[in-house]
Amino acid sequence: MSDTITLAHGAGGRQTADLIESVFARHFRNPEFTADDAAILPLGNTRTAFTTDGFIVSPWKFPGGNIGKLSICGTVNDLSCMGARPKYLSCAFQIEEGFPLHALEEIAASMAQTAAEAGVRIVAGDTKVAGRGQVDHIFITTTGIGEVQEGASPAGHKARPGDAIIVTGDIGRHGCTILLARNEFGIDADLTSDCAPLWGTVEQLLDTVNDRSDLHVIRDATRGGVGTVLYEIAAQSGTGMRLHAEAIPVHPAVRGVCGMLGLEPLYLACEGRLVIIAPQDAAPGIVKTLQQGKYSTNAAVIGEVTENHAGQVVLTTEIGTQTMLPAPGGELLPRIC
Amino acid sequence: MSDTITLAHGAGGRQTADLIESVFARHFRNPEFTADDAAILPLGNTRTAFTTDGFIVSPWKFPGGNIGKLSICGTVNDLSCMGARPKYLSCAFQIEEGFPLHALEEIAASMAQTAAEAGVRIVAGDTKVAGRGQVDHIFITTTGIGEVQEGASPAGHKARPGDAIIVTGDIGRHGCTILLARNEFGIDADLTSDCAPLWGTVEQLLDTVNDRSDLHVIRDATRGGVGTVLYEIAAQSGTGMRLHAEAIPVHPAVRGVCGMLGLEPLYLACEGRLVIIAPQDAAPGIVKTLQQGKYSTNAAVIGEVTENHAGQVVLTTEIGTQTMLPAPGGELLPRIC
Repeated sequence: MSDTITLAHGAGGRQTADLIESVFARHFRNPEFTADDAAILPLGNTRTAFTTDGFIVSPWKFPGGNIGKLSICGTVNDLSCMGARPKYLSCAFQIEEGFPLHALEEIAASMAQTAAEAGVRIVAGDTKVAGRGQVDHIFITTTGIGEVQEGASPAGHKARPGDAIIVTGDIGRHGCTILLARNEFGIDADLTSDCAPLWGTVEQLLDTVNDRSDLHVIRDATRGGVGTVLYEIAAQSGTGMRLHAEAIPVHPAVRGVCGMLGLEPLYLACEGRLVIIAPQDAAPGIVKTLQQGKYSTNAAVIGEVTENHAGQVVLTTEIGTQTMLPAPGGELLPRIC
Repeated sequence: MSDTITLAHGAGGRQTADLIESVFARHFRNPEFTADDAAILPLGNTRTAFTTDGFIVSPWKFPGGNIGKLSICGTVNDLSCMGARPKYLSCAFQIEEGFPLHALEEIAASMAQTAAEAGVRIVAGDTKVAGRGQVDHIFITTTGIGEVQEGASPAGHKARPGDAIIVTGDIGRHGCTILLARNEFGIDADLTSDCAPLWGTVEQLLDTVNDRSDLHVIRDATRGGVGTVLYEIAAQSGTGMRLHAEAIPVHPAVRGVCGMLGLEPLYLACEGRLVIIAPQDAAPGIVKTLQQGKYSTNAAVIGEVTENHAGQVVLTTEIGTQTMLPAPGGELLPRIC
């Protein structure tokens, strides 16, 4: 391991996991400590989900959202992935001296609107200001409290051979949008981030599945994208993952940009997409429910969990070729969220 | 109001309050929203306190602590001021590329040690890395959950004329320590920050007072110091505050530095001191309990709440002069916490 912090430590892949394990988990370890999306706390007579996320996206505003909307979506979605109804949020702002007030106003309005849509209340906050050049525009950290719903306990280790792998929509839009918003490549595309609060999506599933325990795994494919999430689940569950390349929904603009730049859409961040792993017989019902939802009309089964190739993700094509998706690592694009 | 964010917006005084009111409260308003130290949430059958704080102190390491210790103390103390036992913390790191791993290790070790002392568990976290020059070394945001203790409900509006004003120790040490640590003034002094986790202090009080509701107000005097906190309580309670200058405990080194630089110790930040407001007849017992505590041996009554001079803080001296403490505002020293 390097002796300084690198961008890869913040990319959400292997190096992030190594840092959590070698520094934070080692010092902080306790029964409720989690390296997952949210910790589950016994508070009074409830099961409470608790999660935090820092947002440092650059630029702070992008097609389809801004850092404020993103900061609510990210934490709402982490709670949702635990089967927890988001109840309360806190938000801490670190702002650069000279940041325009109207921009802060725009960010706060987005946060309020997104929180209202997700049915969550922003109840506490903090504001710090650093001098010019000491923080790049604005960082926001949100922390969320949610109520785990009866019968729901999705977890990364619960994928079972034979399970279907579902994504709730086309992948890689957020990462691709941010990449284009930076204007470093001189590429234009008609593309917006998929950034969205997904509690409504998860609630619909909880309300319609025959058995909530069929929702073996629910994960939001943020930093590192669907590919990284699947590698994590494969490792946690001790299974393999087989994806059908032609079944993976990718927006034509994302496919085009990825083609030009040699990127793999499976490793581009989403901010409004879930990976859901459930038994094959429950999958058609889940996909049908999803396709009726606001943020999941393009939901699809993209593959299945396998007993062989444990810990790996294999990509098959229509013409029968089979390749190993390279293991995630390094940093594809910093400050994506 | 200025049309850009200024350092004063992050100083914890009037401009911070204006910003919260004009931007955040306006957009986020809901029944549990608070501009106070912590929100109180009805979760299951418990009263839960919930608070967040961002830490951007510069330098990240100082005599008596570092940003890690500070990030635990600040949130533990905000919960303690609500009469809430700190139970769980989350922490979000924003780190500059190139930050030394051994320094992060040192910070994490301090966090673990301070959390253990306060009896609180760090259960969830997040790590983001920004490029060189995009964040100054390291920022940490901690968010805390606490259980409000039976019979405790201290609040800023509960000061009553005649009540005693107590501080739990000598004031201004943290602000003065940071100021000297920056080496901008060429002044040396043998001084350490008062940075400390104060749940033990509050728990001792809850366990020894005859009536917990006698603890009318408990506030930690961080950004803006004791002076700013007293102005806030005066405004919230609609009372005046009279302080006896000679009764206010100030470390000789702090007094010396303040004399040289023309600063008022009442406006220097503390990170391990509480302001407590309680009925006169309960005050001697409270001070006695405090003086036996690890972090409050210099506790003292420093004044009383008055009916006149509503909304103001008056300073009296031994020889009978009486001056108005200037209202807090502007930014004394940025990135103090």
